[in-house]
Amino acid sequence: MTAMTSQSARQTRLRMGKGLPAELAETLAATFGPRFTTNSAVCLQHGTDESAYEPVPPDAVVFAESTEEVAKAVAACHAWRTPVIAFGVGSSIEGHLLAIHGGVCIDLSRMNRILDVRQQDLTACVQAGVTREALNAELAHTGFFFSVDPGANASIGGMVATAASGTTTVRYGTMRDNVLSLTVVTAEGQVIRTARRARKTSAGYCLTQLFIGSEGTLGVITEITVKLHPQPEAIAAAAVNFPDVKSAVETVILAMQMGVPLARAEMLDALTIKAINAHSRTSLTEAPTLFLEFSGSPAQVQEQSVTLQALAEEQGGGEFQWATRPEERKRLWTPRHHAYFACLQLRPGCRSFTTDACVPISNLAQCVAETAADIQAAGILAPIFGHVGDGNFHCLLLVDPGNASEIRAAEELSHRLMRRAIHLDGTCTGEHGVGLHKMSYLEEEHGAATVEVMRRIKRALDPHNILNPGKVVHLDGEDLVRPKTTSGAAVGERTR
Amino acid sequence: MTAMTSQSARQTRLRMGKGLPAELAETLAATFGPRFTTNSAVCLQHGTDESAYEPVPPDAVVFAESTEEVAKAVAACHAWRTPVIAFGVGSSIEGHLLAIHGGVCIDLSRMNRILDVRQQDLTACVQAGVTREALNAELAHTGFFFSVDPGANASIGGMVATAASGTTTVRYGTMRDNVLSLTVVTAEGQVIRTARRARKTSAGYCLTQLFIGSEGTLGVITEITVKLHPQPEAIAAAAVNFPDVKSAVETVILAMQMGVPLARAEMLDALTIKAINAHSRTSLTEAPTLFLEFSGSPAQVQEQSVTLQALAEEQGGGEFQWATRPEERKRLWTPRHHAYFACLQLRPGCRSFTTDACVPISNLAQCVAETAADIQAAGILAPIFGHVGDGNFHCLLLVDPGNASEIRAAEELSHRLMRRAIHLDGTCTGEHGVGLHKMSYLEEEHGAATVEVMRRIKRALDPHNILNPGKVVHLDGEDLVRPKTTSGAAVGERTR
Repeated sequence: MTAMTSQSARQTRLRMGKGLPAELAETLAATFGPRFTTNSAVCLQHGTDESAYEPVPPDAVVFAESTEEVAKAVAACHAWRTPVIAFGVGSSIEGHLLAIHGGVCIDLSRMNRILDVRQQDLTACVQAGVTREALNAELAHTGFFFSVDPGANASIGGMVATAASGTTTVRYGTMRDNVLSLTVVTAEGQVIRTARRARKTSAGYCLTQLFIGSEGTLGVITEITVKLHPQPEAIAAAAVNFPDVKSAVETVILAMQMGVPLARAEMLDALTIKAINAHSRTSLTEAPTLFLEFSGSPAQVQEQSVTLQALAEEQGGGEFQWATRPEERKRLWTPRHHAYFACLQLRPGCRSFTTDACVPISNLAQCVAETAADIQAAGILAPIFGHVGDGNFHCLLLVDPGNASEIRAAEELSHRLMRRAIHLDGTCTGEHGVGLHKMSYLEEEHGAATVEVMRRIKRALDPHNILNPGKVVHLDGEDLVRPKTTSGAAVGERTR
Repeated sequence: MTAMTSQSARQTRLRMGKGLPAELAETLAATFGPRFTTNSAVCLQHGTDESAYEPVPPDAVVFAESTEEVAKAVAACHAWRTPVIAFGVGSSIEGHLLAIHGGVCIDLSRMNRILDVRQQDLTACVQAGVTREALNAELAHTGFFFSVDPGANASIGGMVATAASGTTTVRYGTMRDNVLSLTVVTAEGQVIRTARRARKTSAGYCLTQLFIGSEGTLGVITEITVKLHPQPEAIAAAAVNFPDVKSAVETVILAMQMGVPLARAEMLDALTIKAINAHSRTSLTEAPTLFLEFSGSPAQVQEQSVTLQALAEEQGGGEFQWATRPEERKRLWTPRHHAYFACLQLRPGCRSFTTDACVPISNLAQCVAETAADIQAAGILAPIFGHVGDGNFHCLLLVDPGNASEIRAAEELSHRLMRRAIHLDGTCTGEHGVGLHKMSYLEEEHGAATVEVMRRIKRALDPHNILNPGKVVHLDGEDLVRPKTTSGAAVGERTR
């Protein structure tokens, strides 16, 4: 860990230096046996995510195996007013997991049981530690699948916590559209279920949606009932080049307006394609490219394909390169799925500041174009790709982690992009969540009164501020703790 | 008004007898001029909904024309700790609007401006008093439409408040799936916007979804940004008879599991068809019937039609009666849309207790069959129809409003149905909301700890309990007020 602002650093060191109250440690050790640990390597691993922040370890980790165990751990922490941070696989990228106020990390990865699959109802109930790939492997023989795909093999609990989405959202929606009910442990350690399994309900406030995207700050999500979708009869994938990013984006916008049910619609800029070619040994044309997927009956796939080819041609798009058989489709999509790692290798040893702007699609071409120009002016290497059907795109700002001025430049660029997205009636985060990094943009995006409503909810559900404290909304009287990047440069504090 | 339990009646009479504080009345009169009224006929109309309850008028009504006016009215009521009830068109059916603690009704029907339609983004922003038919009339020339159709020509603000849905939900979702952002006046009279216009966001707690279905108890919704959908190229409708309700339901379940994107899938039992024949002078076969709609490209419609015919035939369904041209489809669907009024005429002078059970679709056939048997045993005339693709169905329990024992029997039947739905992992209300009538079932459905979380949210956002008090969740220290039906029989209090 590097230096922090003096007060925050003192507070954090104090908590971490002090460790857990001995009685709490005893209670947790008695409950969890060897599944309670203060081992520094384990703690460090649990204070590490995919963000540009330095790790901040918790004081202890417990490995829970059931909702009841989570409830016991939270109740014990509640009694000692000690922070609780839920942990899935650690793939979040905005600092969500960092134990900036110390406390106990509850690792949910052993809660990996698929509790039921009800094909007739198109639902599955899983423990929070089940990963999306594990669920889909279990479903492979059923003819149904779980649709949300954020790229990483995230835990489904973590995907609920960040309201995740991804390449299939244009067709099947985000986690908000694919969760029917949650089992949640409250700040006091009570177990609640937010809804039953009906496909719709008007029975009171929608707690399911309140906990989705709450990033562990309102409760610990332990079980999730998700919606399943029937495997389409036919699937075809295609890649097509465009003379510029704008024409690629316009093609997708037109398809959306016509109601073409695209299964995926990903745009990759020329630099991303270059990275993919280097990483995956492909020979894709290094131009702005759409990766598309069509699904449905064979006739529907045919029809959608014809429509998209016509739209793309109008926009100056090139020939479609098709992939229909599963292994061909895999060959086409694998490079897209590896885009993140491929881009990191554009600059060996670099770290990435990953942005997550999302705007109304009519503003997307402008937002991407202005961002591309800004990137060029800043002289930072930054491939751009995204889920253009949703208006969502990511820039990977590739920086030397030891170069403070470069990190500052990247943070300034990221800052301007968030403001640009907000100014274009969009959001600073389409799918990655707030964590530590986006907290200071919430007021700009929503207004102070809206954020105050969020604070009221936080205080009402977690009056002692033990649930992932210091994340999402900053409470009065709470120390503002901002860990540093490896360079020591502050990030995410521009607008405060 | 009829007698109430002594304490509740005293409290209500006290409030209503006392009327508004003079200073509050002066403030509202100064702000609203002639659009502030205490006229008893106007107040009575604003305390009347479509439920089986007797009307309970507010002390005054203001007709607001802007968000700013709503904010002023709420701020004034907040200063005087006086209840505020928002009113759209009065089509709610669970007692939502009844001014059981007196106060000021804010009529939003003059907030009927469509603020913008952005075809490129597939969004429209409307004031809360715009009705769904008015919005769709405005959209008619655009090639886009607003999809949610609860039957009544409800205001869009009211539809947000009750998380409404309807015949098209099987394809396009409920209000939860079709609202991007809300402007809301808080209990203190502050104006907030819950989100920007991006199609997805992870930027903090999802206040949009919290206010959807909150029935005016957490804030007053004044503006709504909704999603639009492209008008399908081709639409075909069909009616098909089945030997029994179960086989009709099974046909829809199979279609859902195959991923057939049905545009509508309504089941009507033989009694409903009989009512329709009498009311609409049609000669439909008086048997359980599915009304279906297919939409998409002509080829997709053809493909879906063939699939559904095959599924129906397997289940013993009869010939499909087709309607493809707009006037034919209107002729087919109009009787379905009039089913509610047609059923009321099965028994002239009756009133209806309308139920709203919704269960996982695998439990739907059982739930409907047990309910049909229960209806028969109770000797109550009660047609059944519903949105079977969602697992949601309604019974109209047709009772003589002057016959207390019949009303008690209907209430018992309704009570058993709600318990049956909950027992089958469903909900006591799929789309009508809680209002007064379902409050006592929330704990049974969700558990006491879950309802306590809802109460915490209510207290946090409305600490003085001025927003539609006495609805959705019952707060400690709050008088439990239950108005009566015309017979004087108590309703909705079974499980308390």
